[in-house]
Amino acid sequence: MEDESTLLMIPGPVQVLPRILRAMSRPMIGHRSREFGRIYEECQKTLKELFQTANDIFVISGSGTCAMEAAVGNVIGRNDTVVTIENGKFGERFRLIAERYGKVKPITFEWGTSIELDKVEDALSDGAKAVTMVHNETSTGIKNPAKEVSKLAHQYDALFIMDGVTSIGGDTVLVDEWGVDIAIVGSQKCLGAPPGLSAISVSDAAWDAIVDQPPYYADLNAYRKSSAKEITQTPYTPAVSLFCALEEALNVINEEGIDARRKRHKMAAEAIRAAAEVLDIELFPSLNEISEYSNTVTAMLLPEGINDKKLRDGMLKRKVQISGGQEHLSGSIFRIGAMGNFTERDILTTIQTLEVVLKEYRVIARIGDGVNAASDIFSGFGLEK
Amino acid sequence: MEDESTLLMIPGPVQVLPRILRAMSRPMIGHRSREFGRIYEECQKTLKELFQTANDIFVISGSGTCAMEAAVGNVIGRNDTVVTIENGKFGERFRLIAERYGKVKPITFEWGTSIELDKVEDALSDGAKAVTMVHNETSTGIKNPAKEVSKLAHQYDALFIMDGVTSIGGDTVLVDEWGVDIAIVGSQKCLGAPPGLSAISVSDAAWDAIVDQPPYYADLNAYRKSSAKEITQTPYTPAVSLFCALEEALNVINEEGIDARRKRHKMAAEAIRAAAEVLDIELFPSLNEISEYSNTVTAMLLPEGINDKKLRDGMLKRKVQISGGQEHLSGSIFRIGAMGNFTERDILTTIQTLEVVLKEYRVIARIGDGVNAASDIFSGFGLEK
Repeated sequence: MEDESTLLMIPGPVQVLPRILRAMSRPMIGHRSREFGRIYEECQKTLKELFQTANDIFVISGSGTCAMEAAVGNVIGRNDTVVTIENGKFGERFRLIAERYGKVKPITFEWGTSIELDKVEDALSDGAKAVTMVHNETSTGIKNPAKEVSKLAHQYDALFIMDGVTSIGGDTVLVDEWGVDIAIVGSQKCLGAPPGLSAISVSDAAWDAIVDQPPYYADLNAYRKSSAKEITQTPYTPAVSLFCALEEALNVINEEGIDARRKRHKMAAEAIRAAAEVLDIELFPSLNEISEYSNTVTAMLLPEGINDKKLRDGMLKRKVQISGGQEHLSGSIFRIGAMGNFTERDILTTIQTLEVVLKEYRVIARIGDGVNAASDIFSGFGLEK
Repeated sequence: MEDESTLLMIPGPVQVLPRILRAMSRPMIGHRSREFGRIYEECQKTLKELFQTANDIFVISGSGTCAMEAAVGNVIGRNDTVVTIENGKFGERFRLIAERYGKVKPITFEWGTSIELDKVEDALSDGAKAVTMVHNETSTGIKNPAKEVSKLAHQYDALFIMDGVTSIGGDTVLVDEWGVDIAIVGSQKCLGAPPGLSAISVSDAAWDAIVDQPPYYADLNAYRKSSAKEITQTPYTPAVSLFCALEEALNVINEEGIDARRKRHKMAAEAIRAAAEVLDIELFPSLNEISEYSNTVTAMLLPEGINDKKLRDGMLKRKVQISGGQEHLSGSIFRIGAMGNFTERDILTTIQTLEVVLKEYRVIARIGDGVNAASDIFSGFGLEK
C-alpha cells in the first residue's frame, strides 16, 4: 500500500526534499576527481559542525550498521574487552557486532528502560578498552545519558563509542565537549539525505587505540590516508550520487541553521507527546532522572481498542506511514519518526491521521484534540518542558 | 578540470544514462515496504541471469570491496587457509582482505602477467579451503582463466571465489557452469549503474562452508534470512535510491539483451585494440595461452614522446577522461574503460581525442588512423580476433 505519495514518518529513511533527490541526478563524475574531492570536503566541514568536533570525520558508503562495525572493529581486538550498554535494538546490535571482535561485557537493561550508571561503572571498574552506547535508541524512543557515560568511560580509561545515528543533526550532540571518542551518524535520519551513507568521527585517543587488523572495508586508517591525499578521496569507490545528495542535504542544514534545526526537532517531538497526552496514549519508555524522551522518534503504547496492524494499515491507507515496534516490542508499541526536513504540516497531518484511525476504531470520540494540543506547542501556547 | 560534461571513459564509475540517474530522484520509500521488496526481487532476478546462476544472490549497500570482504570473510575463518592469486591491484586486494581473516597462501605474478596454473595447483595441493581470483583485472586489462582455476579449485575441494566486478554484465561469466562458489559484481561497472552497490552469489557448497563469525555488515546469513522474508528485504537499511537506479539499469540491460551487451563490450575492446595497433601503441599485458585481453578495460603502454600527465590532461582538457596506471604502473600505462551503456560514438570520440593529443605532442603526424581502424571493427570490416 506504500507508494511514492505516502508521507514517510518512520524513524528513517525519512522523506527527502526534492532538491536533495535532484542532486543525485547529476551526471556521474569520477571518484578521484577534484569535484568529488570538493564535495567530500564540504560534507566533512558541515558534519564536523553537526558533530561539534575537531576530530577527523569520514563518510562511509554503507549504512549506520557499517559505521557501527567500523567503530567497534577498529579499536577492539580479539583480546580487548568492551562494555556494551543495551536497552534497545541498536544497543543490542552493538553487542552483536562487538562479539565478533573482542571480549564483551554486556550491560543489559530491559528495552525501553533507563541505563543505570552504577552498573556501567561496575563493569568499567574491572577494566575495559571501550564502552559502546546508543545515544538515541530508535527502537524505543529513549535518549540515553551520553555525557554521563562518556565521563565514566574516561574515568576508567576506556574509549567512549557512541551511536548518534538518529540524534546527530536533530538533537544536541557535543562530541568534543562530552569526549566521545568515536561517534557515528546515518545519512537517512536527521540529516535528511537518502540512506546508504554514514559518517564517523575519530578522536586522537581512538587513533592511538587502533588495532592491527580491523575489518578491511571499514578500516579507518585507510579512510584517513585517502582523506589526506592532495585530492580528498575515499579508499574504495564511494557512492558518488549519495555524496551529491549528502552535500545538498547539508546545504539545507546550513541554510536552516543547526540550532534552528535542533529546535524544530525538539518542538515536533514535544508536539507529538502533547498530542499523545490528550489522546490518552501512553508514552512508551519509563524514564529515570538521567534519561529523556527522544527528540527525533516517539514511541507510544498501543491504546486499548486497536492493534498494531489496524493502526498502521489505517494510517497507510490514508497515506501516512509510521512504524511498529521491533522484535518483542512488535504489537505493543508504535513509533513516529520526526527526523530531517519534516514540517509542522507533516507533524499535524500525522497526528490528524492518527486521530482519524483512532476514531474509526472508536478509541476516541472525535478528531481534533491531538492536533490542537500539538498545534499549541508549535504556536508557543503549549506546556514548555 | 573534470566536470559534468566530461565523457567518463575510466574503468568505473562509468557514465550513467539519464533515465537511470532519474530513477534515483523518485520520492523516498520505506526499506521494509512492498515496493522496495519488489525492486530488490527484480534486481535479484536479472542479476541471476547476468551471473548465469541459480544460486542465491544478494545486493549489498557497499562497493565491490565490501563484497570482496563479504566473499572472503564469510567462508574463511582464523584457521582456514586461502590461496590468493594475484596479478594486479585487485588480486592484491583479495590477499590483503584474506590476511585479516585466515591463513593466506599467496600466489603472486607480476602485475599484468598471466596466471600460471601449475603454481595454483601446487598451492592447492597442500590443502586450502578456498581460492580467490579476479576474473577481469581492471588494473591491467587482463582477463584471467576463471573456468580453469575453478576446475582446479574443485579438484582439490576448495571453494572458488571470483571477483567479477568488471566482467559480469559486460563479458561472459557462467557462474554455475564454471562452478564459481562466490561471485561478485559492482554496480558502477558493466551494469551501468551509479557506484555504491555490489551483488554477491553464493553456492550451496559455499553455504555449507560459512564460518561462525563473519563480518557483521557483510554477514551472508543475515542477507539470506532477510531476503527470504515475506517482503524481500536487506538486513540493514539499504541505499534505497541506488536500488531504484540498479533496477532501471537492469531494465536497460534486459532491453538490450545480455548477449548483445556482451558483444557490444567485446567489439568496443577490439576497436580500441585495433586503434592502438595502427597508432603503434603497445597493449600492456603480456599474455600466455590461457589469458586474454579484457573486453571491458584496455591497458596500453604510454608511447614515446608523451607522459601520463600530458596525455590525460590533454584529453581531460578536451572533456574525455581516461585512467592512468595504479601503484607502480602509474606513469607507464594508461587505461580506457568501456563498460556499461557506452556507444560506438563514445569509443570513436575517445580514440579521436587520443589522436588529437598524440598529434599535439607530435607522437603521431595525423589524426584519423585510429578512428578508421576502430570504425572498421564496428562496421565489420576489421580483423576478427
